[in-house]
Amino acid sequence: MDYMQELIELLGDERVTTNQTVLEHHSHDESYHTPRLPDVVVFPQTVEEVSQIMKLAYARHIAVTPFGLGTSLEGHAIPYEGGISMDFSQMNQVLEVRPHDFLVRVQPGVTRTQLNKELKKHGLFFSVDPGADATLGGMAATNASGTTSVRYGVMRDQVRDLEVVLADGRIIHTGSMTAKSSSGYHLTGLFVGSEGTLGVFTELTLRVYGIPEATTAARACFPSVQDAVDTVVDILSAGIQVARIELIDERSIRQVNLYKETSYPESPMLFIEFHGSEQSLAHDIEFAQNIAAEHGCQEFLFETDSKARAQLWDVRHNMAYAFLHKSPGKKMMVTDVCLPFSELAGAVVDARQAIDQSGLDGAILGHVGDGNYHVILMIDLDDSDEVARAEQLNAHLVEYALSRGGTCTGEHGVGVGKAKYQRIEHGEALDVMQSLKNVLDPTGILNPGKIFGA
Amino acid sequence: MDYMQELIELLGDERVTTNQTVLEHHSHDESYHTPRLPDVVVFPQTVEEVSQIMKLAYARHIAVTPFGLGTSLEGHAIPYEGGISMDFSQMNQVLEVRPHDFLVRVQPGVTRTQLNKELKKHGLFFSVDPGADATLGGMAATNASGTTSVRYGVMRDQVRDLEVVLADGRIIHTGSMTAKSSSGYHLTGLFVGSEGTLGVFTELTLRVYGIPEATTAARACFPSVQDAVDTVVDILSAGIQVARIELIDERSIRQVNLYKETSYPESPMLFIEFHGSEQSLAHDIEFAQNIAAEHGCQEFLFETDSKARAQLWDVRHNMAYAFLHKSPGKKMMVTDVCLPFSELAGAVVDARQAIDQSGLDGAILGHVGDGNYHVILMIDLDDSDEVARAEQLNAHLVEYALSRGGTCTGEHGVGVGKAKYQRIEHGEALDVMQSLKNVLDPTGILNPGKIFGA
Ligand SMILES: Cc1cc2nc3c(=O)[nH]c(=O)nc-3n(C[C@H](O)[C@H](O)[C@H](O)COP(=O)(O)OP(=O)(O)OC[C@H]3O[C@@H](n4cnc5c(N)ncnc54)[C@H](O)[C@@H]3O)c2cc1C
Ligand SMILES: Cc1cc2nc3c(=O)[nH]c(=O)nc-3n(C[C@H](O)[C@H](O)[C@H](O)COP(=O)(O)OP(=O)(O)OC[C@H]3O[C@@H](n4cnc5c(N)ncnc54)[C@H](O)[C@@H]3O)c2cc1C
Repeated sequence: MDYMQELIELLGDERVTTNQTVLEHHSHDESYHTPRLPDVVVFPQTVEEVSQIMKLAYARHIAVTPFGLGTSLEGHAIPYEGGISMDFSQMNQVLEVRPHDFLVRVQPGVTRTQLNKELKKHGLFFSVDPGADATLGGMAATNASGTTSVRYGVMRDQVRDLEVVLADGRIIHTGSMTAKSSSGYHLTGLFVGSEGTLGVFTELTLRVYGIPEATTAARACFPSVQDAVDTVVDILSAGIQVARIELIDERSIRQVNLYKETSYPESPMLFIEFHGSEQSLAHDIEFAQNIAAEHGCQEFLFETDSKARAQLWDVRHNMAYAFLHKSPGKKMMVTDVCLPFSELAGAVVDARQAIDQSGLDGAILGHVGDGNYHVILMIDLDDSDEVARAEQLNAHLVEYALSRGGTCTGEHGVGVGKAKYQRIEHGEALDVMQSLKNVLDPTGILNPGKIFGA
Repeated sequence: MDYMQELIELLGDERVTTNQTVLEHHSHDESYHTPRLPDVVVFPQTVEEVSQIMKLAYARHIAVTPFGLGTSLEGHAIPYEGGISMDFSQMNQVLEVRPHDFLVRVQPGVTRTQLNKELKKHGLFFSVDPGADATLGGMAATNASGTTSVRYGVMRDQVRDLEVVLADGRIIHTGSMTAKSSSGYHLTGLFVGSEGTLGVFTELTLRVYGIPEATTAARACFPSVQDAVDTVVDILSAGIQVARIELIDERSIRQVNLYKETSYPESPMLFIEFHGSEQSLAHDIEFAQNIAAEHGCQEFLFETDSKARAQLWDVRHNMAYAFLHKSPGKKMMVTDVCLPFSELAGAVVDARQAIDQSGLDGAILGHVGDGNYHVILMIDLDDSDEVARAEQLNAHLVEYALSRGGTCTGEHGVGVGKAKYQRIEHGEALDVMQSLKNVLDPTGILNPGKIFGA
């Protein structure tokens, strides 16, 4: 029997589709990577269905690529060997909120904005906030992070337990509901960031936080990117507990003004947020302001009311879209290196020089409190010279970071785009990773071609 | 050629020993588990030597058990199949302090007190503080934690990179010096907590913190353990950022008074520490005091000067020794379950009842901010009835925790003592762990018998 037929017997024909529009929707992410159609898209609703689909795929050697919202930036969700694209939009329930445990249990298709809406009723929030509305399954699979990671950590720090369906259909739990454990190997940490190549997540238990008593946001303008980064270094070294500290260079600000019709001053800027009690905030802010002033800060403006604050972060979160939506016909390449903190200022200054030398139009922004910055490049895929220069620039930034103890991807993940840097970053550890992949996915059906390359 | 001879050729005869006293020192930990002599103890000084030893052991199928300070509590460091005990006391250098990166690079034999002495010069500290002075290699291998984990996290949260020698002698690095990364599988998290069963650590890159601007410690007495635990729940739910919050029951206090000749009131007590700025502390403390008062707190005393504070924490850190040193001829069994926070109060109350019913003399204390508590039992190994009752009690506490989303070990690890609970805690995930073990240590020479049982 044909495997499509078997899938239909499992899920019914509404949830198994080869409709061209649906296939196309599952053929690409939001970046420059080449699309590829899956053969079929399935919409499971339960862990048992996911397990049955995996058993079928395992028996017949069919590739399976999990699909959240397709917002990843390195080709992660593109099914380069065709087969099944497994879409989690019909597993999108918030299953349980446990306020006293600061935990929530969700299905993988829940998005971060959906979750935060639900949590707000309990005075809680989920901290990880990539600049796209993504699913929690996808965020766990890429070990996503965002503007608040400097204070609350990355996706891996939030995941307490995963329900995982393995390549052969077995269902396991990787952790527990406790704040800590020394029982057995840390499977949770291994599966988080595995990009759909080791197993499929069907449920996540996540750590959440109480909405802070007081929040203040500020933006600070600087004469140069170096001054802004030096300010970040000094603020963090002084132990000031910022909840967010984001760099946006003048090129980025210009794009925002264009896209949002705002009139922010076009100079390097830090967006900062403080969480705490009224008392501690007053102290932290004064301290931070003094440090910024020492580095030539020309303007330090507070956004205290919640609407202005929301607008500030909305600008930051929509930065990539400000480029995407104003560059018709172009595709986005976003670099994503992360460095030890002491190397950050040098790296950002070098990146600006490299962009200018390349003749490309590139904007710098990033989660500088984590040592992570991005260069956003809008490229015309039909212009092979432009593509080559963008790839060269990306490679240069990666080499710079790797030679200084950094990593080729701070948060976006490897997908296909960063596969070529894995050997130089990890050395023989890559063989260990490959051997773990082989043991958990012996026939290579789970998201083939990702992390290790084709 | 005999393998002893080969070892001597590698290390010289001073660093390869079969001296009876040295063998005995490497035959036990600080608990009730049955000792077993290794055949030989080696003292490597470099990663290359460790790699050579592993290659030799791998070729000849000889068991290798890494040994830090032997303070683990579940038989971890006991070489149950004989062979080589690999002692790291001669790899005890702090290699590099990077204050601006909040990082330190150390050899595995460095102890936490040694490290903190060095870091203090830079205004920094390392946060994880088990109640014994342990090596950082051992602490990483057990995923140790301590009194400050409620604020700063457990050992796994501090490790950025490990240099690991694999079973076959290959040398890998698992991470980088960056605050975050989404590059490849999270090997660091997998090796942390692997108890010497997946590889041998020869270097660690660890996160460190700035010594806080202000620190205040307090102790608060309560009418009952339930009141004390309820106070913890309310303090954490209110979002007050305590750096430490430890429960000590009246039985524990009595032992301290006996051992340290102190005169603490013999009632359930919380030891609390606050870190922050002067301003935020004032606010946090007032808040915490009010909550404690609502739960019948009879005395809330501050220790502001650094000597009194050090004494307070010294008492807490020496709690287990207060029992060990006053119970000649007896051995220590320490239970170590951890629960979701909302289940903690019920668990502690149940534990007290179970201890009383067992007729054993047991003290309760723990890192209650993490949902983790211990029962300390001093047992006479020649009294088979007492041993049986202690094991029954331990099993009861584990079952209680597991049936409520908890774990059988919050921080001490599995070793041999908790191996019997692994299947019920992890289900089929244990098979996944076993398959990872098989691929990384195919001939089973690394610390055999641990985690998975004999
Ligand atoms: C404008 C823009 C801004 C962004 N900003 C950030 C940022 O600040 N930080 C950041 O980290 N990322 C950022 N990203 C990247 C992206 O949002 C993240 O990678 C996100 O985690 C992807 O989630 P998704 O639901 O879209 O997953 P998808 O793109 O659908 O899938 C991502 C990967 O996860 C796997 N996957 C999905 N669901 C599951 C599951 N249930 N089980 C197992 N594997 C699964 C897929 O197979 C794929 O490998 C940005 C992207 C865009 C377009
Ligand atoms: C009084 C007392 C109080 C304690 N309190 C706590 C506490 O509060 N929190 C807590 O977590 N623990 C506590 N413990 C347990 C113990 O201190 C920890 O488990 C500690 O991490 C062990 O460190 P060690 O250097 O003594 O290692 P060892 O006991 O020598 O070894 C422990 C394990 O680590 C492995 N190992 C050692 N070095 C390496 C290496 N370089 N590479 C790979 N594997 C290695 C060993 O093979 C073994 O499996 C306490 C123990 C005592 C006696």
